[in-house]
Amino acid sequence: MAQEPLVDLGRRAKSAARVLATATTGQKNDALGSAAAQLRATADEILAANAVDVARAESAGEKPGVVDRLRLTEQRLHQMAEGLGAVAALTDPVGEVVEGWVRPNGLIVRRVRVPLGVVGIVYENRPNVTSDAAGLCVKSGNAVLLRGSAGALGSNVAITAALRAGMESAGLPADAVVLVEDTRHETVAEFVRLRGFIDCLVPRGGPALVALVVEHATVPYVVDGDGNCHVYIDADADLDMAERIVVNAKTQRPSVCNAMETLLVHRDIAAAALPRLASALGGVELVGDEASRSILPGIGVATENDYATEFLALRLAVAVVDDLDAAIDHIARYSTGHSEAIVTRDYGAARRFVREVDAAAVLVNASTRFVDGGELGLGAEIGISTQKLHARGPMGLRELTAVKFVIEGDGQVRT
Amino acid sequence: MAQEPLVDLGRRAKSAARVLATATTGQKNDALGSAAAQLRATADEILAANAVDVARAESAGEKPGVVDRLRLTEQRLHQMAEGLGAVAALTDPVGEVVEGWVRPNGLIVRRVRVPLGVVGIVYENRPNVTSDAAGLCVKSGNAVLLRGSAGALGSNVAITAALRAGMESAGLPADAVVLVEDTRHETVAEFVRLRGFIDCLVPRGGPALVALVVEHATVPYVVDGDGNCHVYIDADADLDMAERIVVNAKTQRPSVCNAMETLLVHRDIAAAALPRLASALGGVELVGDEASRSILPGIGVATENDYATEFLALRLAVAVVDDLDAAIDHIARYSTGHSEAIVTRDYGAARRFVREVDAAAVLVNASTRFVDGGELGLGAEIGISTQKLHARGPMGLRELTAVKFVIEGDGQVRT
Repeated sequence: MAQEPLVDLGRRAKSAARVLATATTGQKNDALGSAAAQLRATADEILAANAVDVARAESAGEKPGVVDRLRLTEQRLHQMAEGLGAVAALTDPVGEVVEGWVRPNGLIVRRVRVPLGVVGIVYENRPNVTSDAAGLCVKSGNAVLLRGSAGALGSNVAITAALRAGMESAGLPADAVVLVEDTRHETVAEFVRLRGFIDCLVPRGGPALVALVVEHATVPYVVDGDGNCHVYIDADADLDMAERIVVNAKTQRPSVCNAMETLLVHRDIAAAALPRLASALGGVELVGDEASRSILPGIGVATENDYATEFLALRLAVAVVDDLDAAIDHIARYSTGHSEAIVTRDYGAARRFVREVDAAAVLVNASTRFVDGGELGLGAEIGISTQKLHARGPMGLRELTAVKFVIEGDGQVRT
Repeated sequence: MAQEPLVDLGRRAKSAARVLATATTGQKNDALGSAAAQLRATADEILAANAVDVARAESAGEKPGVVDRLRLTEQRLHQMAEGLGAVAALTDPVGEVVEGWVRPNGLIVRRVRVPLGVVGIVYENRPNVTSDAAGLCVKSGNAVLLRGSAGALGSNVAITAALRAGMESAGLPADAVVLVEDTRHETVAEFVRLRGFIDCLVPRGGPALVALVVEHATVPYVVDGDGNCHVYIDADADLDMAERIVVNAKTQRPSVCNAMETLLVHRDIAAAALPRLASALGGVELVGDEASRSILPGIGVATENDYATEFLALRLAVAVVDDLDAAIDHIARYSTGHSEAIVTRDYGAARRFVREVDAAAVLVNASTRFVDGGELGLGAEIGISTQKLHARGPMGLRELTAVKFVIEGDGQVRT
């Protein structure tokens, strides 16, 4: 039973989006509650479909990490349902008056948050993204067009069925949540060119997916890009604090985008700091420049490429810098604009770092790991934008909205 | 004397952008003041260069409108200089704290406006855009990479020289304003792919330019698109007001994007409204659907294409609609999402129109012609965005900024 063509799926989502756009917060919350209940009520079907996906991945010899991301358990399904409830509890961004004023001629001007319309998500193997993304999109008044991976198709079909039933039982269109079941690679290229049907694309995947989007997309998008994040230990840093932050930024969860990938150390503190930090970073493979290797002779040579790489692993590039300017220059050269931190007690250095480093998030005396929607208090996150337009850094419900001008008069004309 | 390759011009602008990003408001205002003084001081050179451009356009048989847009006079040059002064007087958006809060663990979180970096502008024959756009970009802390038309090259070179001298005499880099002198058509395609060097592209041109950008750009952009704007006369409209607004929206300046292109009239008021409106629209050629032609038998037949066309001329498509729903549906089908107006005394109709019509600007009882940065009080405008992401509607200084997270701690790590 082949699904209809992609453009028709887009048309269905677009039609649902018009209804979602004016749904009340109560209706949307009811729909999320019903969707959560449906996930629980159809848990057996979802887990059975997932077991088939998992078995196929295992017999295809997929890596344990891939299989683990794919696997659902009762506990994970419970978390997905809880997640929908948590999103329902968040403030609805739609209708928020961002600002407003009155013109000399009496025109009343407001800028008001409205849904984007249809949000497109291209993602990989995690079936929980299906429900997490749908929850955020529906709460912010958008329809969602989902294109998950081939490996998770059975799981995604079962989850989507539950979410769509939840929408309908709350009186919203099932097409608020549309899954693209054609998982051929070519479909992604077609998906990113559905101009007129996708109002915002959020690609959730690796560099190859981002490159495809940048090169071929005709729809508007927000790139959730790499995080080649730096921590700079200033001459005047508290070394206890530096150790705590460096260890946390590198090792608390090395596989994520807000983990540290390069450690920069001011030359005046390098001899004192580096041996201590290296020892605290026990299981981490360090590679360094000449100056850091003269202090840590056992470590490997860092290539140009190491400084440009998001390792996402227990590997860390190290460099000794002459001063704050050199640290800022190094970051300007290699940063992907995600999260950059300084550790210092020097007010002037902190102030300059904050002003001069160009990134989605700049941190003073805190771990880069805090750059996350939940940790910063946004409530939930659909991704972390590394672009400058529209959204930058963790994206919550508000970043899934646009703003429109509402202009109210009593017959004004322009002279 | 060939200019260096495009990518090197981008590199120069990018390097200047780092300096502009931390320039104080005072420095930027000084630079704009010096640039205005330079425009005045080199008026003879600029007007002489412009005279050559104008003569070439005339001898090439360009239309009078094209030649007029190209032509500078002492008066127009004076306005360009005044414009720089007006932009200097606007509030600097850089550094504005958009919002801020404290997390339970003591992290202080702020979202702060920062410049975008390098703004790219592709534009057509008006040499005043060179200085207007440069002024807005510099005031918002950005460098600007300008690519004007071949026909205005001499004028643009002379204007840019004045602006660059102004930057330098205020101690800012001349490369805050870089003009691409290679005006071959292929250069535009290369320009829109300068990823890593252009942080935001603002194409200012017709549908062909916008289509090229959507199809080929790899740099982030904000589309200043068409305005197929509607005015809907509700059953309960004040006909005096309707006449005033319709005449203003269509005829006050028919060649601009916020002019009305289609008039929708509720069927209950059509017989009373249409003859009166048609008569008030004296010199305008009307085309209509069957229902409107039964009331105005003299007018032409409106095709599907007429309803989809931005005429930018004294031509107007007319349709009679059954009710508010039909008006909203017509707009949803044909609108380019620019400016849409309702004329009504009915509170409920106004409320629904405002909520349900999806456009950059929705107006009640006011002319679409007000959708303009100056008229709405933004102070100046770099364009009118018809996209939903980043900026929607008239774009002022703030829309030339991004926001970054600044996170200040005293040693916090994530657990």
